[in-house]
Parts: sequence; structure tokens; C-alpha cells
Amino acid sequence: MTPVMTSSPRLPGPRDRMVDSARLLIQERGVTGVGLREVVAHAQAPRGSLQHYFPGGKTQLVGEAVARAGESTRAVVAAAVADGTDAATTFSAVVERWRAVLSDGSFARGCPLAATVVDAATGSEELREAAETALAGWRADTAALLRRDGFPAKRAASLASLLQAAVQGALIQARAQRSTAPLDAVERELLPLLTPPGGPLSG
Amino acid sequence: MTPVMTSSPRLPGPRDRMVDSARLLIQERGVTGVGLREVVAHAQAPRGSLQHYFPGGKTQLVGEAVARAGESTRAVVAAAVADGTDAATTFSAVVERWRAVLSDGSFARGCPLAATVVDAATGSEELREAAETALAGWRADTAALLRRDGFPAKRAASLASLLQAAVQGALIQARAQRSTAPLDAVERELLPLLTPPGGPLSG
Repeated sequence: MTPVMTSSPRLPGPRDRMVDSARLLIQERGVTGVGLREVVAHAQAPRGSLQHYFPGGKTQLVGEAVARAGESTRAVVAAAVADGTDAATTFSAVVERWRAVLSDGSFARGCPLAATVVDAATGSEELREAAETALAGWRADTAALLRRDGFPAKRAASLASLLQAAVQGALIQARAQRSTAPLDAVERELLPLLTPPGGPLSG
Repeated sequence: MTPVMTSSPRLPGPRDRMVDSARLLIQERGVTGVGLREVVAHAQAPRGSLQHYFPGGKTQLVGEAVARAGESTRAVVAAAVADGTDAATTFSAVVERWRAVLSDGSFARGCPLAATVVDAATGSEELREAAETALAGWRADTAALLRRDGFPAKRAASLASLLQAAVQGALIQARAQRSTAPLDAVERELLPLLTPPGGPLSG
């Protein structure tokens, strides 16, 4: 492999595109509702590339889409950890990111992790674990932010669990009512809980 | 139809059983993952009864299962309204009810409303509306409880939205990690928010 010499972003290959397409389609229709042929067509990948890149079939493809979804949510929190942003500001950034996803997609797309749990947690131990790994990673990062803000470890874990639950539930409500109001309510009600025990941080 | 003369509960007929079976199977596998023949078999209903009772097919059956699920959650809140229970106690009762569903089913069953939104909100306007009607009813009842406890109307609506979101999200987390801990966290963190503005009610 030769390194890319220009500064333009490298176009994703068919394997990457299939993982992204799977993620997008799962966000719209759930895991069971997405067919492998649709993923190949959506990704504009050559026929036969699915078997080539994903010998483990749909479970492998969905598992990778779930892992990638987890990474992209964690990236928001990881950036906050890196640049010293507090948990309240980070939570607002996460909520804002979901508002944009909902609005861009006419409320067609929710969280692929929730979709995986709802459709596949009972039937596929592998996909249940993939979803749990992604969800647990996000919670761990958020708890770390809260500890840095001054919350004791146990309370930080409990609050991180609540923040994730509230966002996941608000996404379901938002798609049902075709409105971002549930995300607004969650943000408005929970931000006051994120003020550190010793008062707001000065930086 | 002659009225039932004994005090024993009337056994549900095939139509009722099919709605209940659809609800249970959707809780485990989502909407797309449930086949009509499975519902008929699970309900021990005669072949052909689906077309007879549900001329609108799967959409009608799922729509009725969603409506029934909404009614059964609202019943918990409606009972609280009737006997003067406060919002905090009622919220704990709702959470406890979900703890029991998760534990009884080895974490196999989640909320059928969430499953309907995730699988069908983008593809079926009818099912999206059915889910929204059920979710909105639960929020309205909860907001009424909060207003009776002394919260102003706008805050009551906002808190009711948060409570529903947190429970929905916690159910997804709980199934992913096969633990009721997410429901415990949500209950622990949110109960303090439900103390009425003028302090705890005396009765």
C-alpha cells in the first residue's frame, strides 16, 4: 500500500461503503428490514463483494456497522475529553448532532444501536454483544468526563447511564412525533443535573 | 351474545389472542421479524382467522397490538390518577413493571412501541401514528399527575417527556447488557426531580 500523496480525502472503497450503507439503512428500517442486496446496491458495490468482504454474512456486516456507529458517537465525547470541554457542553453537542441527523433525514433515521437491540438482541448473541460494546463505550467516556468535572465515580456512572437512556428514548419519541421537541426536553431537563458538585468549572 | 354468568374470567377469543401474541412477538423480535403465520401459531388460532379478523393484514394487527400496549402502560398511570398516588410513586411502579417484564423474559422482551418506531416509522405512516398515539397518551397522563403534584403545566409536560424517554432508553440498554441496572439508574437519578415545587405532598 502506497500512502496517499495529496491532501484530498481518500475515497472509501466498496468494503467501507457497504458498512456505511448498512448503518444508514438500519437507521431507517431496523436490522431485519435491511436486505443484503439492498446494501450492495446502496453502496454501489460490485455483486459478489459481500461474500468477498463479509464471509460471516449479514451478522458480520451488521456487527461492523454497529461498531462504526459506536465509534462515531464516541468521537464526539473523545474530542471533548481531549480539549477539556465539560460534560454539560458535550451532552449538548451530542444532542445537537442527533437533531441534525433527524432533520437531515426527515425523521427517517434513528440510532442503529437501538435498532440492533430491538430487532436482534433476542436472536443473535453476537449482535447483542456488539450493541452492548458500543453503548458501554459511550457510557464509559461520558462517565470519565463527569468524573473530571468533579462527580464521584459511582454518581458519574449513574448519570452517564441516564444521559444515554434519555437520548435513546428521545430519538424514539422524536421519530414517532416527527419533531425534535423530545430532544429539547431531555436537554433542558438534564443539563442542570450536570453542574459539578462544587459549582460550575471555571476552565 | 349472552353475558358470562360466572365470576371466572372469560377466556380470550382468537382475535384477542392474536393481538396479544403479536405484541409479545414484537417485543422480542421487532415488527419486521414477526411473520403472520407465527402469530397465528403462537395464538393457537385457526388458520384463516387472520384474514377473517384482520382484513387490513399485518398493519392492522400490529396497529392493534401497539394500541393495546399503550393502553396497558396507561392503565398503571390511570390507576395512580384515580387513587391519588403521586408522580414519583407512579414512576417507580412503571419502572418496576418493566423490571418484571425483563426478568420474566430473560431480557428477551422490550417495549413494542419502541420496536414499532425503529422498524416501521419510516415505512408506515399508519404504524408511526399508532405508536405516537400510544406514546403521547402515556405522556399526557404522566403530565396530568405532575400537574396535580404542583408542577406548572409546561414543566410537567417537559418532565413527562423526559421520564418516558429515560424508560424507553433504559429498556434498550437493559436488553443489551442483560441487566436491570439501567432502569435502576434512571429511577435513582430521576426520582429527586419529581419532588413537587412546594416540597413533598402530605396526602
